[in-house]
Amino acid sequence: MSHTAAPNDAPLSSACSEFNIDSIRAAAARLHGQIARTPLLESPQLNKAVGGRVLVKAESLQITGSFKIRGALNAILALEPAERARGVITFSAGNHGQGVAAAAASAGVEAVIVLPSEAPTNKIERCRWWGAEVIFYDRATENRAAVVTELIRQRGLTFIPPFDHADTMSGQGTIGLEIAQDLRERGIEPDGVVLNCSGGGLASGVSESLRHFYPGLPITLVEAAAIGKWSRALASGEPVTLNTVPPTVLDGMAGPTTGTKCLASLRAKNPATVEIDDDEALHGVKAAFETMRLVVEPAGASSIAALLYGKVPARHRTTIVVASGGNIDPDVLARALAV
Amino acid sequence: MSHTAAPNDAPLSSACSEFNIDSIRAAAARLHGQIARTPLLESPQLNKAVGGRVLVKAESLQITGSFKIRGALNAILALEPAERARGVITFSAGNHGQGVAAAAASAGVEAVIVLPSEAPTNKIERCRWWGAEVIFYDRATENRAAVVTELIRQRGLTFIPPFDHADTMSGQGTIGLEIAQDLRERGIEPDGVVLNCSGGGLASGVSESLRHFYPGLPITLVEAAAIGKWSRALASGEPVTLNTVPPTVLDGMAGPTTGTKCLASLRAKNPATVEIDDDEALHGVKAAFETMRLVVEPAGASSIAALLYGKVPARHRTTIVVASGGNIDPDVLARALAV
Repeated sequence: MSHTAAPNDAPLSSACSEFNIDSIRAAAARLHGQIARTPLLESPQLNKAVGGRVLVKAESLQITGSFKIRGALNAILALEPAERARGVITFSAGNHGQGVAAAAASAGVEAVIVLPSEAPTNKIERCRWWGAEVIFYDRATENRAAVVTELIRQRGLTFIPPFDHADTMSGQGTIGLEIAQDLRERGIEPDGVVLNCSGGGLASGVSESLRHFYPGLPITLVEAAAIGKWSRALASGEPVTLNTVPPTVLDGMAGPTTGTKCLASLRAKNPATVEIDDDEALHGVKAAFETMRLVVEPAGASSIAALLYGKVPARHRTTIVVASGGNIDPDVLARALAV
Repeated sequence: MSHTAAPNDAPLSSACSEFNIDSIRAAAARLHGQIARTPLLESPQLNKAVGGRVLVKAESLQITGSFKIRGALNAILALEPAERARGVITFSAGNHGQGVAAAAASAGVEAVIVLPSEAPTNKIERCRWWGAEVIFYDRATENRAAVVTELIRQRGLTFIPPFDHADTMSGQGTIGLEIAQDLRERGIEPDGVVLNCSGGGLASGVSESLRHFYPGLPITLVEAAAIGKWSRALASGEPVTLNTVPPTVLDGMAGPTTGTKCLASLRAKNPATVEIDDDEALHGVKAAFETMRLVVEPAGASSIAALLYGKVPARHRTTIVVASGGNIDPDVLARALAV
């Protein structure tokens, strides 16, 4: 893997890495034993509420509480030994940052996380817990990409992209391999998959692996109603980067950018898109908690919400969803349980 | 299976059912595909807090939110066709009652749950959700066992015991089979298992199956400090039934009786016992939530608490625990998160 040394919010992608069922299988072999084998859960209560069968891949139970460690660890393990020895860098305090910090710790690689100086203490501490070095920048006077680029130049660090890279997408695609394996063992044939989508790493990865086993499987992407970047990108074929993103409780889907490689991969599969607003997502959080005792963050519960609100045809069908993460502020969880 | 027709709080046990690794394997075959294959989770944060490796079998993610459906469904599936056709009965509104209601629904068998007329509405509704018939009795004027016995006489129902029966114990023992399978797949050798213990069905079942694969594996039973029935029963060899049980947040471990068969099976394995108080259990609930995003009820978190409070030698060791249930009142969860 060669990650270019000039990252921005939509990191440049390497042309030499592959993204297909073979790269996803290679990722699964790399990750084996290093991440949680998360369960594919089913709740009779949720089934009844939806009017069909719903199978929930609980990535909220993954190490660091989200799927992100899969892509990050696959990217790190794909590095050349000399690259690994110099360390990795990224700039998220959220699920991707924690995924990189944990993946680097697991691989014995040094990690630098670049954060704004006003980042919340608990997010800073979560990165440091894994041994990552946190470097702050001043949002008022410094450009984040310039800070990261300078650190890469000085230290020879490798940037670990959050979504738009074949190694990242392949790592997330291992979720689909596990789902397919569980479905086969249980003799279940799916009628569709519903995936929350922000950068597109999760959606492209899982779509690629599930379509290998279930050609033509209907795919629905769920995005935040206030953002709607994927419906536009899929219609036009051009990646979308928003200048501003409105505030939303769906922080896990609030990135401004659709990945270029993710878009190309997803567009070839002709997915539907649906939108979820904050209130609907909070009802999804509540449903996951009450029917499965799963703690899911709003973005992770958005696919469940899409089914509950009838936005995806799911009655008398078997639908796969990924509860992609469980990092929810206790205040937001309390708010969701009270809706 | 033949369940006698004269239940009381310590149901009489049938002499003709077996309890051993073969009966546990037979239970696993019966339950296959009908219950959740729960994950064996590991949290680096929990490991660090304990100072050793902790593997958590998350039965809180089981259907109905506890392990109880395993024993109940195995007992129901072991019935003769004529017995099944007449239906089953039990008298718990808690995890066992929900387990019986769900198991009966799964097996297509009618279930009667006998509850005091002042039982909480949400618990009544949870039994009814599965299609069980709820029959009330007046605690002031009626004897529960007499009510159940009369219903059995009238309708030919079969009583499904909560713990002290070979079929129940064998069903709970399937948890140990799954743990052993996951350990082998991940190349992990356990140094001990810590099990919460009330009637003893979970503890005897899991101990039996784990000792088959790991002879001599140290077993620790966790019980509520205010109750302490197992330390007495194991010391004397005589089952203990308390006349009164002090109020405790550990409602899942607050039954007054040690099972006779459970005691015989456990005593032969010479387990250690430790006690957990309410505050310690709530810290266990908090730790499960914060380190694994698992919603666990106090009794289910008591084994985690025993490790966190250093009551079991776990430093530099690999310890198995079962998070046995996740049915916690939101108020109690909020209280735990605030400790």
